[in-house]
Amino acid sequence: MDSATLLCTCSDRRGIVATLTGFVFEHGGNIIDLDQHTDDETGRFYMRLVWDRREFAFSRENIPSALAMMEQKFPDMSWRVFFSSPLPRVAIFVSKTQHCLADLLLRHQMGEIPGEIALVVSNHPDLQDLSKHFSVPFHHIPITPTNRLQAEAEQITLLKDNQIDLLVLARYMQILTPSFTQEWKGGIINIHHSFLPAFIGARPYHQARQRGVKIIGATAHYVTEDLDQGPIIAQDVTPVSHRDNVEDLIRKGRDIERLVLGRAVRIHLEHRVIADTGRTIVF
Amino acid sequence: MDSATLLCTCSDRRGIVATLTGFVFEHGGNIIDLDQHTDDETGRFYMRLVWDRREFAFSRENIPSALAMMEQKFPDMSWRVFFSSPLPRVAIFVSKTQHCLADLLLRHQMGEIPGEIALVVSNHPDLQDLSKHFSVPFHHIPITPTNRLQAEAEQITLLKDNQIDLLVLARYMQILTPSFTQEWKGGIINIHHSFLPAFIGARPYHQARQRGVKIIGATAHYVTEDLDQGPIIAQDVTPVSHRDNVEDLIRKGRDIERLVLGRAVRIHLEHRVIADTGRTIVF
Amino acid sequence: MDSATLLCTCSDRRGIVATLTGFVFEHGGNIIDLDQHTDDETGRFYMRLVWDRREFAFSRENIPSALAMMEQKFPDMSWRVFFSSPLPRVAIFVSKTQHCLADLLLRHQMGEIPGEIALVVSNHPDLQDLSKHFSVPFHHIPITPTNRLQAEAEQITLLKDNQIDLLVLARYMQILTPSFTQEWKGGIINIHHSFLPAFIGARPYHQARQRGVKIIGATAHYVTEDLDQGPIIAQDVTPVSHRDNVEDLIRKGRDIERLVLGRAVRIHLEHRVIADTGRTIVF
Amino acid sequence: MDSATLLCTCSDRRGIVATLTGFVFEHGGNIIDLDQHTDDETGRFYMRLVWDRREFAFSRENIPSALAMMEQKFPDMSWRVFFSSPLPRVAIFVSKTQHCLADLLLRHQMGEIPGEIALVVSNHPDLQDLSKHFSVPFHHIPITPTNRLQAEAEQITLLKDNQIDLLVLARYMQILTPSFTQEWKGGIINIHHSFLPAFIGARPYHQARQRGVKIIGATAHYVTEDLDQGPIIAQDVTPVSHRDNVEDLIRKGRDIERLVLGRAVRIHLEHRVIADTGRTIVF
Repeated sequence: MDSATLLCTCSDRRGIVATLTGFVFEHGGNIIDLDQHTDDETGRFYMRLVWDRREFAFSRENIPSALAMMEQKFPDMSWRVFFSSPLPRVAIFVSKTQHCLADLLLRHQMGEIPGEIALVVSNHPDLQDLSKHFSVPFHHIPITPTNRLQAEAEQITLLKDNQIDLLVLARYMQILTPSFTQEWKGGIINIHHSFLPAFIGARPYHQARQRGVKIIGATAHYVTEDLDQGPIIAQDVTPVSHRDNVEDLIRKGRDIERLVLGRAVRIHLEHRVIADTGRTIVF
Repeated sequence: MDSATLLCTCSDRRGIVATLTGFVFEHGGNIIDLDQHTDDETGRFYMRLVWDRREFAFSRENIPSALAMMEQKFPDMSWRVFFSSPLPRVAIFVSKTQHCLADLLLRHQMGEIPGEIALVVSNHPDLQDLSKHFSVPFHHIPITPTNRLQAEAEQITLLKDNQIDLLVLARYMQILTPSFTQEWKGGIINIHHSFLPAFIGARPYHQARQRGVKIIGATAHYVTEDLDQGPIIAQDVTPVSHRDNVEDLIRKGRDIERLVLGRAVRIHLEHRVIADTGRTIVF
Repeated sequence: MDSATLLCTCSDRRGIVATLTGFVFEHGGNIIDLDQHTDDETGRFYMRLVWDRREFAFSRENIPSALAMMEQKFPDMSWRVFFSSPLPRVAIFVSKTQHCLADLLLRHQMGEIPGEIALVVSNHPDLQDLSKHFSVPFHHIPITPTNRLQAEAEQITLLKDNQIDLLVLARYMQILTPSFTQEWKGGIINIHHSFLPAFIGARPYHQARQRGVKIIGATAHYVTEDLDQGPIIAQDVTPVSHRDNVEDLIRKGRDIERLVLGRAVRIHLEHRVIADTGRTIVF
Repeated sequence: MDSATLLCTCSDRRGIVATLTGFVFEHGGNIIDLDQHTDDETGRFYMRLVWDRREFAFSRENIPSALAMMEQKFPDMSWRVFFSSPLPRVAIFVSKTQHCLADLLLRHQMGEIPGEIALVVSNHPDLQDLSKHFSVPFHHIPITPTNRLQAEAEQITLLKDNQIDLLVLARYMQILTPSFTQEWKGGIINIHHSFLPAFIGARPYHQARQRGVKIIGATAHYVTEDLDQGPIIAQDVTPVSHRDNVEDLIRKGRDIERLVLGRAVRIHLEHRVIADTGRTIVF
């Protein structure tokens, strides 16, 4: 299959769906999947349109200019188009904690992740063997109180040299600078080990134990300048009780973190997520 | 809002979405909601299309003949169109058990059910007061070993006289005859108190206790001639343990039954369900 | 069955379980149920002990003094003992929203609530018919900006006259004064329509929609002077998506609120909950 | 900590808890954890009792004879006692599918599994590298239509030579002979990729797709001579929809299988599970 996926958003008005599906149909594309949503509070329109482009009139290079006709009819539309190949390229940042990295690498090996995991970067050497087992290059970039900006420059160079499309923070315990997050806006996914917005900040499982909640969770979200405030992509939870001490919460949390991060990475790479007005639409 | 909802299904081919959305757009309809799905194993195409018809060129009466153009382009398409008013009319059959009836009546009163609950029919008089509290007419039609066919004829007369669109079996403990279920095919929803296909038949909570399952559930499905075999609309589950005896399972089950039946009735009345090839597509 | 239930807590030390079970056994009681828990962070010991007291040596009146021997062996132990009859007496405070009240009354009628619902109190007259249908006395005590203290005095008189053991705030939209909550500490259960500690305060579903969470929840907790901060008894959640507007969240939330409040009231009345150090142990 | 765990079951009668806790207390043991349950349908009593035995009067070797006093007081009691060290030894049987094995090995490395994974046995060589990465010996014992009994004899020799306490079938696609399962009764855990008793037998995800269920699940159970009929230890489920084809069900199922198998293995090794009358009590 050789397909194109269009993600677009604009103010709702009459004729968007008919116009776009008509455009694809008239030029030989066969629509495989269409999802649309109109937010009745904000009046925003969102659509994901996938078509088989094997008999489509426009080449990859020409699709953007062909789609430019939309900008005349729907001037405020913002859109992006993705192709089924080559696969998006993914980098994973980790520290010492292995369960999220191991899970992503295993999912990738089992064919669940529609992308190429191109490299792993860590401020610690601990997870090198794990990366090696899955044949993914591992880069150790130590971070100290004094070398932060230099280390980040090294990281960015690595990402650019490897033409990375998506950066996944898989329990990476360093905070990225605002300039980093702004440059990669919408392209960084983090896993937070709580059901946000509950227990923002450090040691959420200790906070959860302290508050005596009966359910804990995990949240995958896009990274923005505001810590733990980016648009939420996926969340899940699991029941806990007074019998669970902090170590139990951490253990139960690991399972949720893995599920939620794996899900978020997969649906992002399937181009199912639109982030807009601080929230996500997940088709 | 004055809207029309089209549910259709046919063999997948190029141009269905573009043709139908184009038809609506060109005749002044504003598309509010569109969901489509192609089953990649059976090659069946399914779509739900909702449009604002306040400026639509065709009247209610003319829409069917206007849509007949589809039958030329897509000869095997089967379709139904629904309008936002008047609301569909619902009858509920019960026996002695009250929780599902009470729940539907309460949901209706709170505005969760997009339909009119026109009457309650029971083979026992027990739930008359409950119906009365919610101002819904109650009909007591006793069923004995010898009057079954006559009672069913009375029921059908009531349904027809009241122009019923949907019949809900809310823990109704009698089995309908094949001629009844065939006449109302796709228009009867039953709640079964197990996670089908586990524990088909009578006393599913006793069966569940006997088998020692750790989760129980409930299933809302369309009624067909084959008992407990109709297309599944909604299911949900809840955890149980060795501490739960049969009475506990029944109690926990009641909560799931109410949620699942309420959900199934609501989405059916929102015209979100297509039953085809023994399964449902739920948009 | 004629049983006694002991709830107790103290600093953990050797011999508590053996001493208490030995005491019951030696005086003719048959242990029906025993649950204990030691919190390994705080070193607190908790136990729930239920015994058949039909052949027990001590009468209801003498049990407290008999149990006083514990205070010699375990001086810091705090304990309460409950009997299987008469049933605890419950009052429900409501405003205009009916789903939680209707649910509790229905559960009571179905025998799920091991208590007597003695009265309903509201600052609005709207839910009088509902109470009447379930044969529960309804008291309308209006609250205005100027009569708050007097209204609260009336409420307290009603609770005392009716020998109320548990007060349930079933979507009661008024805030109780600190003197009220202190007097009834551990005896008031509230349902908060969010997964606490997320979305404290007013309009939690609007907050949830704004933040774009993928799961919403509800929390039943004991009421303390600090709003929304009391010990959590039960919580549950349900998935939501971008398709759910605020009205949908409210509708989905109602189902969770009912389940969670019903569960909290039931386990409290079964004497399964110990609140200590700001959290609950739920046996 | 140096602890002993007693699992016992007998017909319920007065004094069991007091006698056993008194025995432990009087001989210097400090009770850490106690759970008991009486099945009110069968009249069976079950208990799990854990005590710190650092100051306990009886050595490991003498505990069984000391406990023999129970057999005089409660002649039908069956009991087993376990010690906190050495850890139980575990063997894992696999075929080609890696996700369950990878998950168990990862959990073991993270300290979640209170046992030693001593060896992996497979009828295929595919998962040798994975075992090697986690430093667990891998044994390839091919199985052909003609060598089944000989292969099983080899397997049993391996299990005995390695003093295996628990055998885990982690998506092992061969059926063990009745003599094997009888010899290891209560000591073999299998993961079945459906919510049993729904979809017994082969290709459960295909069956689930065919039936159109809205939820799929997985079941960990003890292996008995009757295929898919052994006592259920743990189950979990996940929602699915018409959009999920068989491959999607398999992918979603993998996550549930991993969670459920990991949970079952952990609680078995914590001596929390008693299998009796075809069901399990999970403390």
